[in-house]
Amino acid sequence: MSLADQPPAAALVFQTLLQHGPLSRAEVGRRTGLSPGAVTKVATPLIDDGWIAEVGRPTVERANGRPATLIAVRAERARFIGVKVTGDELIGVLADLTAQPLASRRAALGSRDVGTVVAAIARLVDQLRAAAGAAGPDGIHSIGVAISGDVDGQTGTVQYSPFLDWRRVPLAQLVESATGTPTVIENDVRALTVAEQWFGAGAGLSSFAVVTVGAGIGAGLSIGGRVVSGAHGVAGEIGHLPVGGTDRTCTCGNTGCVEAVASTHAITEQARQATGDPELTMEKAVRLAHAGDPAVRAVFARAGHAMGLALASVANLIGPERIIISGEGVASYDLFADQIRQTFADHAFGAAADCDLVVRPLPFEEWARGGAAVAAQRVFAPLK
Amino acid sequence: MSLADQPPAAALVFQTLLQHGPLSRAEVGRRTGLSPGAVTKVATPLIDDGWIAEVGRPTVERANGRPATLIAVRAERARFIGVKVTGDELIGVLADLTAQPLASRRAALGSRDVGTVVAAIARLVDQLRAAAGAAGPDGIHSIGVAISGDVDGQTGTVQYSPFLDWRRVPLAQLVESATGTPTVIENDVRALTVAEQWFGAGAGLSSFAVVTVGAGIGAGLSIGGRVVSGAHGVAGEIGHLPVGGTDRTCTCGNTGCVEAVASTHAITEQARQATGDPELTMEKAVRLAHAGDPAVRAVFARAGHAMGLALASVANLIGPERIIISGEGVASYDLFADQIRQTFADHAFGAAADCDLVVRPLPFEEWARGGAAVAAQRVFAPLK
Repeated sequence: MSLADQPPAAALVFQTLLQHGPLSRAEVGRRTGLSPGAVTKVATPLIDDGWIAEVGRPTVERANGRPATLIAVRAERARFIGVKVTGDELIGVLADLTAQPLASRRAALGSRDVGTVVAAIARLVDQLRAAAGAAGPDGIHSIGVAISGDVDGQTGTVQYSPFLDWRRVPLAQLVESATGTPTVIENDVRALTVAEQWFGAGAGLSSFAVVTVGAGIGAGLSIGGRVVSGAHGVAGEIGHLPVGGTDRTCTCGNTGCVEAVASTHAITEQARQATGDPELTMEKAVRLAHAGDPAVRAVFARAGHAMGLALASVANLIGPERIIISGEGVASYDLFADQIRQTFADHAFGAAADCDLVVRPLPFEEWARGGAAVAAQRVFAPLK
Repeated sequence: MSLADQPPAAALVFQTLLQHGPLSRAEVGRRTGLSPGAVTKVATPLIDDGWIAEVGRPTVERANGRPATLIAVRAERARFIGVKVTGDELIGVLADLTAQPLASRRAALGSRDVGTVVAAIARLVDQLRAAAGAAGPDGIHSIGVAISGDVDGQTGTVQYSPFLDWRRVPLAQLVESATGTPTVIENDVRALTVAEQWFGAGAGLSSFAVVTVGAGIGAGLSIGGRVVSGAHGVAGEIGHLPVGGTDRTCTCGNTGCVEAVASTHAITEQARQATGDPELTMEKAVRLAHAGDPAVRAVFARAGHAMGLALASVANLIGPERIIISGEGVASYDLFADQIRQTFADHAFGAAADCDLVVRPLPFEEWARGGAAVAAQRVFAPLK
């Protein structure tokens, strides 16, 4: 079976089963808008080729008394590797077709140079292949790399990544050459959002946002079951909403950005100014704030205020059912929580304030799993 | 044929033809993800009942040399009335199934009292029925009312409309009782966005925003062919993004809102303070600014700056292909244009700045037409 020969409905049925299966064919039809006949027509070659299977005993009784057979994705049909790239580390996960992790590995990055990072990704992929006992490139269907910045998934190009200081890097092609395995790339927060939509705190919601706080501040927006990617490749740049006050300059060169007051780096810098200690670390700032130091607490409160304004902006524009707050910065979330919630409540307009704010610490392995999920979702969809 | 008996695919095929028709069945399949067989199966009863028809001579030659027949919505199959409610006027349009206007009427509102407004809508509907020569309620398929505020289209309730000072008004039901005609309601800016998506400057775009400036400041967001409505009924509230500075209080009671510095009322108020003339009107303020009065020009510049920050926020979060700026406030757009574009360019992140900013003066009749378009779109879809 050639995957390219499958009709567009195949991707629709497959992705519906990935996210919601096992389901009866009738339920797949209801969720996709396809007729039962169309679902059967699409499902048959996928069953023949082992991508989906009828599962369990037919236990669901229908109105006519006949049992309905459930179909589901066959997790073991293909394996994927997801890689999350940070400024100083790679985090890799080997996962099955349902994005269940089978193994994970981490590797430090000696430099942010493109060649170094690509070579390190290739070594990590080899280790995960070995860990899985999968011999040769054929054992892995595809690789999904999750990386911060302006990422064009369609061409596989990192247009701009401030953290790595990369511009116009054809990363998908480079990783593909280095590993011999087809590779897709996605903005890291959007990859995490795909993971949350599929098997996390966004499952079953009509719309939600994932906001990550840490070295950078970003967001993924899921509306109607799709992650918003932006007409020009930029979306969810909550860190660059101009609600942070005008006295600090952001890494992007602008003033006013949330990131300029609420990223880990920005908080550390402001805490150094507040305490007069140029060596102060984030850890020390957290300890001082917990100990009640008013100047350092004010730094966290300002960060929380900017975050609250940014979350209210998301709620007022998109009206999501839930906002999931994650990222390494949530480790000290207790220091901004009150300010975030208060500012959010003040500035969310009308019923937008009903949006549920949820804090979820997620390790980088979950981001890497998002990369694997992006790769799995694209099995039957054109790369876009 | 009972409309309720139609499969979900019927709404999909019908809405695709409304927005993009005439199309061949194969093209409908390509756009909806339905198989050619499924399209034919759905289309046949719609053709039998006169909602769609084969049109023109088959002129499109396919690869196999056989001509493809185009199908299209039959404009004359049903008529709709769209009504836009403003604080002091009703604007009504009679339209066919393709939302082409056949007649229009305006009526002043003596009061914003719910009973007065509903009675005035019923009279306007009667006039439009008479103008169309359509006798009796059966002549109009349904009414679509476009109204500002937090509007729950699913229950037909205006949850909160600050301009009318309404809370929890079951408007759809009230208009239905007063007119004898099924009625849907929608937030007015979202209705205008449906119109722009269907037959305006948003047609064919993957995503766009309509931002309206005037007595209020609002936005409609179209992503992937759907207008975002918000999980809790609130979305596109660009007027309440907290980027306006903290010294002025908004009609919503908050500080920081764009609307508090850039609505017509806010501009007039600030121009009165700047000139010391408590009687100054918006028209006079515009004249003074055109004549070069620096204090009044500064008021417009501040409004333009807040609008630029708000548009950059939309671009950074959603990454639309285009932002359409409309509303009665665009009559004096030349006074803020430079400031809007400059601030937008400064704060749009990376490729988000490639978003196209377009100014389109649209009369209230276009908003009313949006109401008719919303009603037409829901012919085969459950009211939601």
